[in-house]
Amino acid sequence: GSDLIATEREKSQISVDKLSNFLFTKEALERQDRILAILKSEEVFDKSQNYFHGRVDRFKVALARAKRLRQLQVKHNWNADDYNVANELISEPGPYGLHSSMYLTTLRGQGTPEQQKLFLEPAENYEHIGCYAQTELGHGSNVRGLETTATWDPQDKTFILHSPHLTSAKWWIGSLGRTANHAVVMAQLIINGKKYGPHPFVCQIRDMKTHEPLEGVYVGDIGPKFGYNTMDNGFLLLNHVKIPHVNMLARFSRVDPETSKYVHPSSPSLIYGTLTWVRSTIVLQSGGVLARGVTIATRYAAVRRQFQDRDAPSGTLGENQVLNYTMVQFRLLPLLAATFALHFTGKAMMALYQENQKKMQLDAERISNTARGAGPEETHSGSDLLADLHATSCGLKALGSTTAAEGLEVCRRACGGHGYSSFSGIGSWYADYLPTTTWEGDNYMLTQQVARYLLKSARAVLKGKAPNNDTTKIFTTFLQKQDMGAAHDILGSDSDLVAAFAWRTSFLTFEALKHRDAEKNSWNSLLVDFWRLSTAHSQYLVVKNFYEALQSESLQRELDPVTIDVLHKLFRLYALTTLEKEASEFYSSAAVTVRQIQLARTKTVMKLLEEVRPHALRLVDAWHFSDWQLDSSLGRKDGKVYEDLFYRASQLNPLNGLTIDPYPDSGVLIKNDESAKFKSKL
Amino acid sequence: GSDLIATEREKSQISVDKLSNFLFTKEALERQDRILAILKSEEVFDKSQNYFHGRVDRFKVALARAKRLRQLQVKHNWNADDYNVANELISEPGPYGLHSSMYLTTLRGQGTPEQQKLFLEPAENYEHIGCYAQTELGHGSNVRGLETTATWDPQDKTFILHSPHLTSAKWWIGSLGRTANHAVVMAQLIINGKKYGPHPFVCQIRDMKTHEPLEGVYVGDIGPKFGYNTMDNGFLLLNHVKIPHVNMLARFSRVDPETSKYVHPSSPSLIYGTLTWVRSTIVLQSGGVLARGVTIATRYAAVRRQFQDRDAPSGTLGENQVLNYTMVQFRLLPLLAATFALHFTGKAMMALYQENQKKMQLDAERISNTARGAGPEETHSGSDLLADLHATSCGLKALGSTTAAEGLEVCRRACGGHGYSSFSGIGSWYADYLPTTTWEGDNYMLTQQVARYLLKSARAVLKGKAPNNDTTKIFTTFLQKQDMGAAHDILGSDSDLVAAFAWRTSFLTFEALKHRDAEKNSWNSLLVDFWRLSTAHSQYLVVKNFYEALQSESLQRELDPVTIDVLHKLFRLYALTTLEKEASEFYSSAAVTVRQIQLARTKTVMKLLEEVRPHALRLVDAWHFSDWQLDSSLGRKDGKVYEDLFYRASQLNPLNGLTIDPYPDSGVLIKNDESAKFKSKL
Ligand SMILES: Cc1cc2nc3c(=O)[nH]c(=O)nc-3n(C[C@H](O)[C@H](O)[C@H](O)COP(=O)(O)OP(=O)(O)OC[C@H]3O[C@@H](n4cnc5c(N)ncnc54)[C@H](O)[C@@H]3O)c2cc1C
Ligand SMILES: Cc1cc2nc3c(=O)[nH]c(=O)nc-3n(C[C@H](O)[C@H](O)[C@H](O)COP(=O)(O)OP(=O)(O)OC[C@H]3O[C@@H](n4cnc5c(N)ncnc54)[C@H](O)[C@@H]3O)c2cc1C
Repeated sequence: GSDLIATEREKSQISVDKLSNFLFTKEALERQDRILAILKSEEVFDKSQNYFHGRVDRFKVALARAKRLRQLQVKHNWNADDYNVANELISEPGPYGLHSSMYLTTLRGQGTPEQQKLFLEPAENYEHIGCYAQTELGHGSNVRGLETTATWDPQDKTFILHSPHLTSAKWWIGSLGRTANHAVVMAQLIINGKKYGPHPFVCQIRDMKTHEPLEGVYVGDIGPKFGYNTMDNGFLLLNHVKIPHVNMLARFSRVDPETSKYVHPSSPSLIYGTLTWVRSTIVLQSGGVLARGVTIATRYAAVRRQFQDRDAPSGTLGENQVLNYTMVQFRLLPLLAATFALHFTGKAMMALYQENQKKMQLDAERISNTARGAGPEETHSGSDLLADLHATSCGLKALGSTTAAEGLEVCRRACGGHGYSSFSGIGSWYADYLPTTTWEGDNYMLTQQVARYLLKSARAVLKGKAPNNDTTKIFTTFLQKQDMGAAHDILGSDSDLVAAFAWRTSFLTFEALKHRDAEKNSWNSLLVDFWRLSTAHSQYLVVKNFYEALQSESLQRELDPVTIDVLHKLFRLYALTTLEKEASEFYSSAAVTVRQIQLARTKTVMKLLEEVRPHALRLVDAWHFSDWQLDSSLGRKDGKVYEDLFYRASQLNPLNGLTIDPYPDSGVLIKNDESAKFKSKL
Repeated sequence: GSDLIATEREKSQISVDKLSNFLFTKEALERQDRILAILKSEEVFDKSQNYFHGRVDRFKVALARAKRLRQLQVKHNWNADDYNVANELISEPGPYGLHSSMYLTTLRGQGTPEQQKLFLEPAENYEHIGCYAQTELGHGSNVRGLETTATWDPQDKTFILHSPHLTSAKWWIGSLGRTANHAVVMAQLIINGKKYGPHPFVCQIRDMKTHEPLEGVYVGDIGPKFGYNTMDNGFLLLNHVKIPHVNMLARFSRVDPETSKYVHPSSPSLIYGTLTWVRSTIVLQSGGVLARGVTIATRYAAVRRQFQDRDAPSGTLGENQVLNYTMVQFRLLPLLAATFALHFTGKAMMALYQENQKKMQLDAERISNTARGAGPEETHSGSDLLADLHATSCGLKALGSTTAAEGLEVCRRACGGHGYSSFSGIGSWYADYLPTTTWEGDNYMLTQQVARYLLKSARAVLKGKAPNNDTTKIFTTFLQKQDMGAAHDILGSDSDLVAAFAWRTSFLTFEALKHRDAEKNSWNSLLVDFWRLSTAHSQYLVVKNFYEALQSESLQRELDPVTIDVLHKLFRLYALTTLEKEASEFYSSAAVTVRQIQLARTKTVMKLLEEVRPHALRLVDAWHFSDWQLDSSLGRKDGKVYEDLFYRASQLNPLNGLTIDPYPDSGVLIKNDESAKFKSKL
């Protein structure tokens, strides 16, 4: 193992450090190393029994870790970024997960100053431990359909929170099952018998001392899941629970306690903004998530040898590294390319988002400086861009998380039998990641939002609106050239390759528009078209962002020509394999010819695989995962795959403490149980 | 839930019972019901804690079940089919799994009568409990590369079994970890320093009384896996372990104990046959495996309601069943079609296989009646057909198991958030099934065998050999029509639809042949083409078998016209969605036109979804899964999804016995632990 992997690394001249620095910045990497050293020195973070524990033990350990992590945060004065880095290194969801993310974020974003004092401060000190309770047994995607009610009682100026049906039980709520003592509960606001839609309420659910549920609160963990078992996702039924007026988060809308009047939200686009931010984060992370699987599988494929090459000259010694088989390359290397593509796309989106936020902030300040209240239209000045960014983030969240989730399983399977062992480190990582395809907008549902936006933009362009963002620009170009046809030189020119993707999106958009507006087809009958359209558009964006990253001045400055050349090949590999997979849309839109795709398939892609292959190991090294983080026998940096598999199986595995009686007629099951020897102490 | 699902069932006139009987036979269904009743009455088979147990507990329970099942087998005098049915109902791999399958099969197939007396008899009585130890840490697919040695010692007429390196440790061996006391060990036979390749040896590994490993044997469980955790897959290192001459399974080849000469195998094609049989079984099962997921997701999608239809007239009450969304239909209904397609294909293959076996048997008898030994060529009389069947089984095993595995995940995700709960019943089933894509020939590796066979057949046809099986027939047709071009009326004619698939296979075969024979490309450079080719060929076979099943006289006799009509729609749905997914190969081979595919995509498929949808529930009902077998809240036959989720979470979930201390600064983790209340007793 070690020799092979060392030889592999010598095959390439890529500067791993420079590339890592370019991807993450030197500061971030140093921070990571610093925090890693701290975590490794703490016994509670020892991972060696993770794969062996059952649900209850995993949860207990995760709780101990969450507590210790919080202590370390205080001790080392870690900021939110430091804390996130630590969590990424630990790589398991923890019981404080929703407290430190959604609960705090919601209080910060939607609480008034008074409420922040009342709720945010104790939450930041971990006296209150909270969660975000939106989804119910009966409703997830359709938030407006939530059934929990918050009825305003003008008499004593309270809200009564209530779960009228079984299906209105809050469900899936992270950190609620065993850990939280507070919850932000999304409930239908009712004033005087009139419904005002879902609003957020802070509700204490457990006693601060005994941690037992308060009266009228029925709460618990929802049970084991495909993954995410270190987290206590919970259920919650509320039986006429009274909360004070101040517990309705009132930054955007509120009930006037004196008049019982509902005061309407002033700026919904800010909430809109949070969603966009969260989704952009998912896009950025999807690259890194996938990169873990690709790192493990690529390293293993360099160590694993199986069969001699069929055409090898007789007398050849030794078997072939499976990474040399084109079939393995074809499965892994486009995913390697995708890790970079998604990373650059995520970074670009975050930058765009921040730029836009700043602009909106400035606008807001300018308006408030005029010393009068802002009309609603004025706070929307960045909103055209925000709408584009919002739609983009929906589509890319869906594409990125689907690519990462499905790619991880491709990586696992590429490892053959050993990929199925928990020690591969891919399976549990995949299982924990999977819900990302469902939460923050189910990936299929999101595609409807993208389509709606694209149709709207297309209508505007048809009406002659001048292009003011990328989407309207590519549509305009398409309309201008549509009749002349497109002659995209996808094999010769990178910008043409990008243009071919833009062309396909535009074509599909105007097709869909025809179906909807001219042919008056029902929305439901077009959902599959919309899904294809959203996918097409998102693929275009990824290809475009990868392309632009390659042109960027910082890349040209920070990286050496060898590395830039390989990244450029990865760009082409990502674009061409995507194009090939979706070939029929590219033909039928006349973005490219059948002949071009055939060439791409049989020649160009195969050539790119061959050219990228020698650099594969260094490219995954640049993702800078430590062995501790990966916790994988197959993905060990030193290639000692077999030694590590053997060590874990024979030395760490509690099942080997059991001596059983194997005979069917014997009533004895276990003759001797020494499995406790293997159990780590809590 | 209940009302909705009852209404659903009323929408369709399909006769569920008739269809079930047609799929499985009445006898098989009665058998299943009979055995189900027995299992349900036994406490050890109670499933209610399955999803909560950790690895060690799951294994213990599985062992208790395996023992009890064996007792029941004896008590009720169950034959192998009965026993298999019971295992399918229990639906978890058990510690006797490899004993009752591979160990017994190998002894039966490869032992001489003397060896059967010595090894098979005690094994059938569960005195010996065995496993099949082929794979090693370093070698799986490449069996010829195995490193364990069996060195013949002419002095004392023994073999010395030895594991020379760490990588020669047997690994992944089912039932070996804790359970087996015997193993069939595949080892490199060495006589006089010369290697004769891998051969099977029976080796006792544990003491019959103490169940402790024998001297020189290092054995244990390999640790937790992504699934399959009720099974003790094991490792085995042998340190110069001596076994008698009789322990080498000698039906096909042996060492003469007097002369130390190696006696060559007479009829390798029989072993070939076993592999074909096993793979055909996998194809047949893949339909049923997928059907579980489709049943669960379809029932849930009929109960789950989310959002009002966007185009619904205002005033419409209630939300839409998610099964009404075309996007959900597009994900689920083609998989529903695939379950039938794979089932019929598997059945056809098994029938073909049995027919061929009979023929070979007759040939063999005829030859032995001539009262002289058979020359090797004579035992090969069915071998042309067998070669076809073998290649077919390779390709279909890969396609079937990939379709089932990936389809299950599509089903799980279609259930939204609740799909992620263990109580969905899909996740664990998927995880346990996944290795089927890797064992009995890694799905990617198998495609090389298919391609090799197709190339060979194509060469024969080019040389003018008269067509003697389906493969050579379609090639011949293709060559004849190639220049005229094909005008397949895929939307109007079913037989044309089948022919379009045949055309594409033929086209890809001759393309690949050109690359290999004319252009002299290396084998390795063509692996991706071969994989595509194998997939294309296997899809053709599935489409063809589905088509033929519909024409069959028995189907026409046993089913009513409504059901036949719906099955026919499922055939078209399977064929057209497959064609659409692989559109670009169909264009470039000129099997169909771009316009045809566009029509298929936007019109025909969408129409078929609409037509199949009302029958979806009855179609899954016909698969005849009992609630006990599915063990799924979402897939309950009565639609009581939410009640069941709630019951399991709140009443069965041991984590809810823990009251924790949530504060980071408190050293107390658990304030109160009543989780034991939830644990089932063994
Ligand atoms: C591990 C995990 C943690 C979670 N944590 C939290 C948390 O902390 N707090 C919280 O509030 N929630 C949480 N959730 C809930 C999560 O946000 C929801 O599961 C998610 O929003 C999906 O909603 P759903 O389950 O209702 O799916 P559904 O909307 O019921 O979807 C079911 C299926 O129907 C389809 N579908 C639905 N509507 C349409 C339509 N109009 N058109 C086409 N197709 C449609 C979907 O694509 C899907 O296939 C969590 C979920 C998971 C799995
Ligand atoms: C749950 C489970 C139970 C098992 N039970 C048993 C058992 O009871 N007894 C037993 O003997 N074995 C058992 N096995 C082992 C199983 O048979 C092997 O894992 C399987 O044969 C795959 O071999 P491998 O792991 O060596 O994969 P490898 O051959 O190492 O494959 C690794 C990767 O390389 C690729 N690859 C390899 N060679 C080539 C090539 N020439 N061309 C292109 N690509 C290539 C593969 O496609 C794969 O992606 C079990 C495995 C599992 C997961």
